[in-house]
Amino acid sequence: MTNERGPFPPPVDVRGRGFPSRAALGDVQRWIDARSAPPAPESVPLAEAAGRVLTAALVAPGDWPPADRAARDGVAVASADTLGAGSYNPVPLLNAVAVSAGDPLPAGTDAVLPVEAVQMDAGLKEALGSVAPGEGVERRGDGLRAGAVLLEAGRVLRPQDLGLLAALGVGEVPVAARPRVRILLVGGPRSGPEALGAMLAALVARDGGVAELVGPLPADRGALAAALAAPGADLLLLAGRSGVGEDDVAPLALADAGTLVAHGVAMRPGDSAGIGLAAGMPALLLPGEPMAGFAAYELLAGRAVRRSAGHDPALPHRRIEAPTTRKLVSEIGCVDLYRVRFTADGAVEPVASPALPGLAGAVRADGFVLIPAESEGFPAGSSVTVQCFDGTRA
Amino acid sequence: MTNERGPFPPPVDVRGRGFPSRAALGDVQRWIDARSAPPAPESVPLAEAAGRVLTAALVAPGDWPPADRAARDGVAVASADTLGAGSYNPVPLLNAVAVSAGDPLPAGTDAVLPVEAVQMDAGLKEALGSVAPGEGVERRGDGLRAGAVLLEAGRVLRPQDLGLLAALGVGEVPVAARPRVRILLVGGPRSGPEALGAMLAALVARDGGVAELVGPLPADRGALAAALAAPGADLLLLAGRSGVGEDDVAPLALADAGTLVAHGVAMRPGDSAGIGLAAGMPALLLPGEPMAGFAAYELLAGRAVRRSAGHDPALPHRRIEAPTTRKLVSEIGCVDLYRVRFTADGAVEPVASPALPGLAGAVRADGFVLIPAESEGFPAGSSVTVQCFDGTRA
Repeated sequence: MTNERGPFPPPVDVRGRGFPSRAALGDVQRWIDARSAPPAPESVPLAEAAGRVLTAALVAPGDWPPADRAARDGVAVASADTLGAGSYNPVPLLNAVAVSAGDPLPAGTDAVLPVEAVQMDAGLKEALGSVAPGEGVERRGDGLRAGAVLLEAGRVLRPQDLGLLAALGVGEVPVAARPRVRILLVGGPRSGPEALGAMLAALVARDGGVAELVGPLPADRGALAAALAAPGADLLLLAGRSGVGEDDVAPLALADAGTLVAHGVAMRPGDSAGIGLAAGMPALLLPGEPMAGFAAYELLAGRAVRRSAGHDPALPHRRIEAPTTRKLVSEIGCVDLYRVRFTADGAVEPVASPALPGLAGAVRADGFVLIPAESEGFPAGSSVTVQCFDGTRA
Repeated sequence: MTNERGPFPPPVDVRGRGFPSRAALGDVQRWIDARSAPPAPESVPLAEAAGRVLTAALVAPGDWPPADRAARDGVAVASADTLGAGSYNPVPLLNAVAVSAGDPLPAGTDAVLPVEAVQMDAGLKEALGSVAPGEGVERRGDGLRAGAVLLEAGRVLRPQDLGLLAALGVGEVPVAARPRVRILLVGGPRSGPEALGAMLAALVARDGGVAELVGPLPADRGALAAALAAPGADLLLLAGRSGVGEDDVAPLALADAGTLVAHGVAMRPGDSAGIGLAAGMPALLLPGEPMAGFAAYELLAGRAVRRSAGHDPALPHRRIEAPTTRKLVSEIGCVDLYRVRFTADGAVEPVASPALPGLAGAVRADGFVLIPAESEGFPAGSSVTVQCFDGTRA
């Protein structure tokens, strides 16, 4: 059990009492990295492989092209036959074969004249220009040598990668399976967890997982514990009822279903998040307040999804350094997340304080700035790092 | 017909002769922008809306929150009752109600004490700290005012947008329908169009379209013309057999199915690309050589897909300015595409010349640099703009 718990003291029931202390965000992230399922390889056809992560390096099965061939449409010739040819000095071609790009070179030819440099005269082809040996020809192995590493393990497959693999006759590739992320939504319309469903599913998909939404479930300790222990998932997110109210039974349900490792994380928003294990699977408690749930996904759950999907567990956002127009205040010992937007001149201004609930600020924002636990914040004019939301062009 | 043709002279049969001239890339792009189907709105549930493009602005249906409510778990109190309270001076609370974040404020209360600031003494609640009026309370309309624009038309929906909309009770949103892009693959294993299928489908998906792959089809003029004229697509891509060889019948088939507007574009790779209309639909000829097909997709077809999907038709790549380590040579009158990679110190070096066929260079590259038609190229050390492939971190 010591091993499972990491550096965290045994959690207590915080209902009606509040958190005696909160775990350091870095400690919780390290626990998540260590406990998330490693990527599981599966083989998928090329048509489904875009954006997936290779689990093994791919090596060229042979030289490419496999033999010398025409690099363009034209007329294959023996280059020596074209010596001295020009538009005022047509030279008859005895061995001249029309070829299309990709055709093997006919015997006795070593270059391809462009069609514009060939004219027909009474059924005979004449060169209107000269070519050097190898001109217009793609040599065996010009593109790739047999055994060369085409793509390294960890590569996120791009469209052109699929094209190259198809050209080489590769039909399937070994990629990380998408982790199955079960999202249990807890509680009713009052505190908002039902607002989390579509958002969390979209975040899971962004990070390479497959979301399964369950609920909304009632805030019933026994029912939640049973739902947590059900098989068929690689990661469990229990969203809602993680706070200090009487019906905040999510931490108790996780303890019943396995181990509640830590409850309360030194971050704002999202400080009622927690971590644990249910039936051996990592399980995360996300606050039901939508902005707190969003922050806890970004800083905690997303790491687990990305790691299991074969991606870098770090935040996936594009980062931009820019000066802040205003002071960003933070509490020592707590990581604060400021929603920010870019001004017309490329500076950064806060949209909402870390304490403001609701997603309206995150919708208006272009991204967020994290203030480390050891910092009291940044004065106006200092350079900060913005984690840009998808599609932001600054 | 003049209107359909734009500024382009009537194309000629280039087989065995070569291109008498090539259309300017900018003219072809303008024709594509003008002829692509505009975004068609459709209504989709929130669960399917991530990454889709809004076709109309969304307005807040009411204030959010709809009434004053607890912003945190705690005890709702009349703030005046807590005056002077402290840990050494507990003050009895007569009107004190435990609340969870999101609960409406009970009558007679105007603030929420954190649970840590309340102790029970013989069944009576006592305040261990004071609160100001409104502390721990989210006021009606704090997040949003009724009628405020939540999201502008053209917004690419983010996960948090879905969360906000769900919290406001919005279940469906008007977004641009995904354009149906039919990709007709022409020709056999010799020249490579079969390598284009998975790549083009992935590019279409990246740009917001739905790809339908047809073929490989034989290089038969009549069969291709019939395939082009079939209904059910918003955009046609005819990939392969666009060159100057005898069996390069794609341009002729497009002329038969409607109008061949221009054949031959002043770009490398991809100079045998073309544009036209088949049964009133825009149709693009893409070269079958995989790198040329890739370039023609990026610079031509992608514009049509993105515009019909509601996106900015410009290239979707992240752009980075960096100095080139080597001279990049280009022909006046032709847009040249150099595949490039970043060096360890953030400079740009070419991976392949525009003339080199095959996708191996595009796979090794981090992105590409375009050299405008009016430029002879860039000397070593000059700053160039790299269009970065997805996932590139420079």
